[in-house]
Amino acid sequence: MAEDASGSIVAEEGVVRLKKALRLDSGGALDGLEIAYRTYGRLNAAKSNAILICHALTLDQHVASVHPLTGKPGWWTTTVGPGLPIDPDRHFIICSNVVGGCMGTTGPCSLNPKSGEPYGLSFPMITIADMVRAQAALLDQLGVETLLAVVGGSMGGMQVLQWASDYPERLHSAVCIAAAPRHSAQNIAFHEVGRQAIMADPDWRGGDYARQGVRPEKGLSVARMAAHITYLSEAALQRKFGRELQRDGLSWGFDADFQVESYLRHQGARFVERFDANSYLYITRAMDYFDLAAAKGGSLAEAFRPAREVRFCVLSFTSDWLYPTTESRSIVGALNAAGARVSFVEIESDKGHDAFLLDEPVMRAALSGFLDSAGKARGLA
Amino acid sequence: MAEDASGSIVAEEGVVRLKKALRLDSGGALDGLEIAYRTYGRLNAAKSNAILICHALTLDQHVASVHPLTGKPGWWTTTVGPGLPIDPDRHFIICSNVVGGCMGTTGPCSLNPKSGEPYGLSFPMITIADMVRAQAALLDQLGVETLLAVVGGSMGGMQVLQWASDYPERLHSAVCIAAAPRHSAQNIAFHEVGRQAIMADPDWRGGDYARQGVRPEKGLSVARMAAHITYLSEAALQRKFGRELQRDGLSWGFDADFQVESYLRHQGARFVERFDANSYLYITRAMDYFDLAAAKGGSLAEAFRPAREVRFCVLSFTSDWLYPTTESRSIVGALNAAGARVSFVEIESDKGHDAFLLDEPVMRAALSGFLDSAGKARGLA
Repeated sequence: MAEDASGSIVAEEGVVRLKKALRLDSGGALDGLEIAYRTYGRLNAAKSNAILICHALTLDQHVASVHPLTGKPGWWTTTVGPGLPIDPDRHFIICSNVVGGCMGTTGPCSLNPKSGEPYGLSFPMITIADMVRAQAALLDQLGVETLLAVVGGSMGGMQVLQWASDYPERLHSAVCIAAAPRHSAQNIAFHEVGRQAIMADPDWRGGDYARQGVRPEKGLSVARMAAHITYLSEAALQRKFGRELQRDGLSWGFDADFQVESYLRHQGARFVERFDANSYLYITRAMDYFDLAAAKGGSLAEAFRPAREVRFCVLSFTSDWLYPTTESRSIVGALNAAGARVSFVEIESDKGHDAFLLDEPVMRAALSGFLDSAGKARGLA
Repeated sequence: MAEDASGSIVAEEGVVRLKKALRLDSGGALDGLEIAYRTYGRLNAAKSNAILICHALTLDQHVASVHPLTGKPGWWTTTVGPGLPIDPDRHFIICSNVVGGCMGTTGPCSLNPKSGEPYGLSFPMITIADMVRAQAALLDQLGVETLLAVVGGSMGGMQVLQWASDYPERLHSAVCIAAAPRHSAQNIAFHEVGRQAIMADPDWRGGDYARQGVRPEKGLSVARMAAHITYLSEAALQRKFGRELQRDGLSWGFDADFQVESYLRHQGARFVERFDANSYLYITRAMDYFDLAAAKGGSLAEAFRPAREVRFCVLSFTSDWLYPTTESRSIVGALNAAGARVSFVEIESDKGHDAFLLDEPVMRAALSGFLDSAGKARGLA
């Protein structure tokens, strides 16, 4: 990749304006939708080596290259790169910012072409299915008809399941990591806390902050702090921070005495530098609305029936309490009931939900094995 | 009890002004501390039937009688009442609002006698040990030298452990329910989110809101919502609410679509009617600072050594992820190492941390058995 000095690997960045209006689940459509994306590697002559990566709630298209705002490495350099399971030397890797996002794809912070001002809450509600429909349209315009694999963790995993249900004919395989087929009451509850924190911030201005030149940074920061706790296991927090203090002795006040407090405050402060509050509202809502079975007549197996020719890999982590293994098991059960081929690994890790972003050797081995096998079945070397 | 029409049971309510200044762990002392308390039943001639109940973070002295602000029944009517494990027909039951609280005991919303204005952040930091020292002083002034039992759940359980460590000679027995010997990194993290939500509210005014005639209700409400999720298990939330909607169909907006959202918003809104934001800051801080072993040279067993004549009962709930059973096991292990007598029951319940407030037959049976046996050993009928 360009930034990572692997000279031979092509990395591109672009924005595609969809030619057709994007139909939305909420009714209506979005005209002139722009989708920001990145690619790594080259599409082969047989067009058989494309892998679409779907990103999680607060991530973006910068999978394996430096983030333009933070200057940090891509969010999945443990998995995507030369010699890694998803390899730009062998695969044509695509990742696009979701509809409603804030990293270049049209979202609530974009200018509404009709008014010339930021959409704010006039942006239509979006769903996971809308995100996937937009990705499919992007692939159409990029000339990618079918995918060797669609891969994603967390909200990315939800998109993977939606892909399998809505566009099975375009998929050879699908990898769903640390995800769930629908948001649970507790999942919704945590998101609602975050939304209320944002909307309680007077600088939110009823969603109109961009036009008014302010930002609800305090509210968004609190939302991030609450969410961040759910991304880590209790054990990981304890091991990382325990009751370690920032300084010698207690402050006897409300400063960040404990390292875990300082860490959370830091997470909140960094987040607001790169993320838009309204995007956070819209995307969390899309996740809360996600219920693949309900959208397909109540049966998850029925939702997967059209995908029975797709090869599935489902991965979960033992200490993930946001989308625990029981959720992955329900996906696997439904895939089995639908007659699909599925390999499932529950990975032993005490790092919690965010384990999927980390260097987890068992995950890497499972992904390599699965994607290599899928590639071979499709005639790749 | 008066309100519950058990005519024969004496229930009293009072405020005691401590004669001596209360020494504080943070250094200095509080002069003229007032402690609001309730009692149920009568102290017997031998003064051997007193039970002190220690309340949790957001609860108060109204254990078994109607709350003056909400009009709701006491918070532990499942456990305290005629025919129940803690029985005003047999026991003299005392519960006082903790130092730093907002239900009559001196706290940050009280008037500072020196300035005639609310303390706000000029109120000194308090600890669990300070709360217990104040309770001991209250008992002195009420003429109660020893306790048949000190009983508490959650933060109340922390006070029970502190009692055992600091005043073992005044205890015959101690019951610690759904608690921990120190706050974990995750516990601190959730509290920090709540504090940041409060302090992010512009109506907090640097803690000076009472003097300025406003209240940081939005921030306090968000804090309560986040905390409330931790009081319930994932299973309880799922069973109670699942993905049930408030109305037919989705709103396609940020209204409370799901019942769990509406429930959380309601919890937040009701909480701000009865609780003070600065009290919430001070008391959560006291809990975060709690680390009984650290305060006693690093060994929990050493902290309990002076209490080896006290009979202990430790109870936990299988689905409590705020203070999970592992925490209770560490208490039990240390008590055993200290040579104390301890009975431990892990109660099967899917209701989460708040199970200790609910009608849990196994808890009731365990409490009855333990307290009856303790009473008999002390010569009660």
